[in-house]
Amino acid sequence: MRRAHRIAAITKTLVEQPHHIFAVGDFADLFGVARSTLSEDLAIIRATFENLNMGRVETISGAVGGVRYLPELTKDQVLQHVQEFCQRLQEPHRILPGGFVYTDDLISSPLLLRIVGQIFATQFQAENPEYVVTVETAGIPVALQTAHALNVPLVVVRRQSRPTEGPVLTMNFLSGPARQIETMSLSRRALPRNSRVLLIDDFMKAGGTLRGLADLMGEFECPVVGKGVLIETGWPSEKLIHDHLALIYLQEVNVEEQKVVVQPADWILR
Amino acid sequence: MRRAHRIAAITKTLVEQPHHIFAVGDFADLFGVARSTLSEDLAIIRATFENLNMGRVETISGAVGGVRYLPELTKDQVLQHVQEFCQRLQEPHRILPGGFVYTDDLISSPLLLRIVGQIFATQFQAENPEYVVTVETAGIPVALQTAHALNVPLVVVRRQSRPTEGPVLTMNFLSGPARQIETMSLSRRALPRNSRVLLIDDFMKAGGTLRGLADLMGEFECPVVGKGVLIETGWPSEKLIHDHLALIYLQEVNVEEQKVVVQPADWILR
Repeated sequence: MRRAHRIAAITKTLVEQPHHIFAVGDFADLFGVARSTLSEDLAIIRATFENLNMGRVETISGAVGGVRYLPELTKDQVLQHVQEFCQRLQEPHRILPGGFVYTDDLISSPLLLRIVGQIFATQFQAENPEYVVTVETAGIPVALQTAHALNVPLVVVRRQSRPTEGPVLTMNFLSGPARQIETMSLSRRALPRNSRVLLIDDFMKAGGTLRGLADLMGEFECPVVGKGVLIETGWPSEKLIHDHLALIYLQEVNVEEQKVVVQPADWILR
Repeated sequence: MRRAHRIAAITKTLVEQPHHIFAVGDFADLFGVARSTLSEDLAIIRATFENLNMGRVETISGAVGGVRYLPELTKDQVLQHVQEFCQRLQEPHRILPGGFVYTDDLISSPLLLRIVGQIFATQFQAENPEYVVTVETAGIPVALQTAHALNVPLVVVRRQSRPTEGPVLTMNFLSGPARQIETMSLSRRALPRNSRVLLIDDFMKAGGTLRGLADLMGEFECPVVGKGVLIETGWPSEKLIHDHLALIYLQEVNVEEQKVVVQPADWILR
């Protein structure tokens, strides 16, 4: 097998499973080439990805020796994608009765979802999350793509428990500005104690749900190493959590003028 | 940029967005090479993927000329992956009070999910689905990975409607052997009329939910071009739908002997 063929096969394998560490020796054995030859192949892939801002290929030295692909985005790429997302959100047809904004089509697009997942993975990978946790329903696709980009399992907290989950831990929490009591529950089997969890949700107003999720993680004795939300609203101004990372600020929905005022979060614009 | 570099970049682009058709000319322009040179690059990638059973790279001839990656699995690969899944399901610790089987960890593993999505994509791609449709909650990850492998949007039908969806169509249906009346609802905006939809769910007993989903698609005037379920139970023997594709048959859960009897579906074993 010639170099060009090997590079096609290795690139495919790395990209399909981000963050997974592959043994360099396994690749060398598979193609029947020396490790030094394979290291040259990897150097070509690494340089190409670096030059074209296609993420990072990281080689891990040592006795075993490994290689993995990290779907990192540059600051410019994050800004560009989030701006595009904002433009889509401003389309007037999204305004619903009651001043809500229809976003279901955006958070179900495979391309947009993949990019949002890669943005969260880029921002939180240094914290080494072992699980991505969200609460049903709308946040699941965004959380799953984040989990995929980080190569960790997704855990979905339920609003109501189901018999197929076995014994569950159920918790009440206060949601939204109206401070209603809501319930969330999670199977005792879902999270081993001391797992490092990343909380991801699609939408945040006051932050009651995310706060509830964080409290639930405390009950599972799991440290929360990051909190990411796709869209945060400007209202209410009092938030129940503060150490979260939002991608988009939804400042105003003006039903009369059919206008959605939205912008990338400050950390993206800086 | 040399051939090996181009092949790394093209492979990454193709694999990251399955089924998306890229213009060959765009690649040629990007790398500043002749179309004929780029065609040779693509031939190398195509041959490599074919030789190693890594899916298929398809070039589309014509005035524009395009190329796309189809994450197809061979019959042997499908069998092997489904058998591995069956082995995991047989682990005795999965048996829950009431004879249920705990599967949440399996359907949240990024690797298993990706493969299940690729299996469904392989089986249903010939029907050219334009949307993957599922109902909340447990089916969402499997459906999303299928949608990703097919490069089409995911539509999630709700059990209860939410104000952020706008006007919805709500439908009652009979679920399960107990024939309870349940509700599903979907935003009027979610599906354009005449869209070809693929229904995906994680679990099927009598098939009431899948039957309800199919009926709901009728209300949206959308043809159902396929129905896929990850796990189908052997009970009840009377099913409400018949033209679906299951990957795994769960035949028996024996709580006393702590035994789960499970096997790949017949079409996979043939």
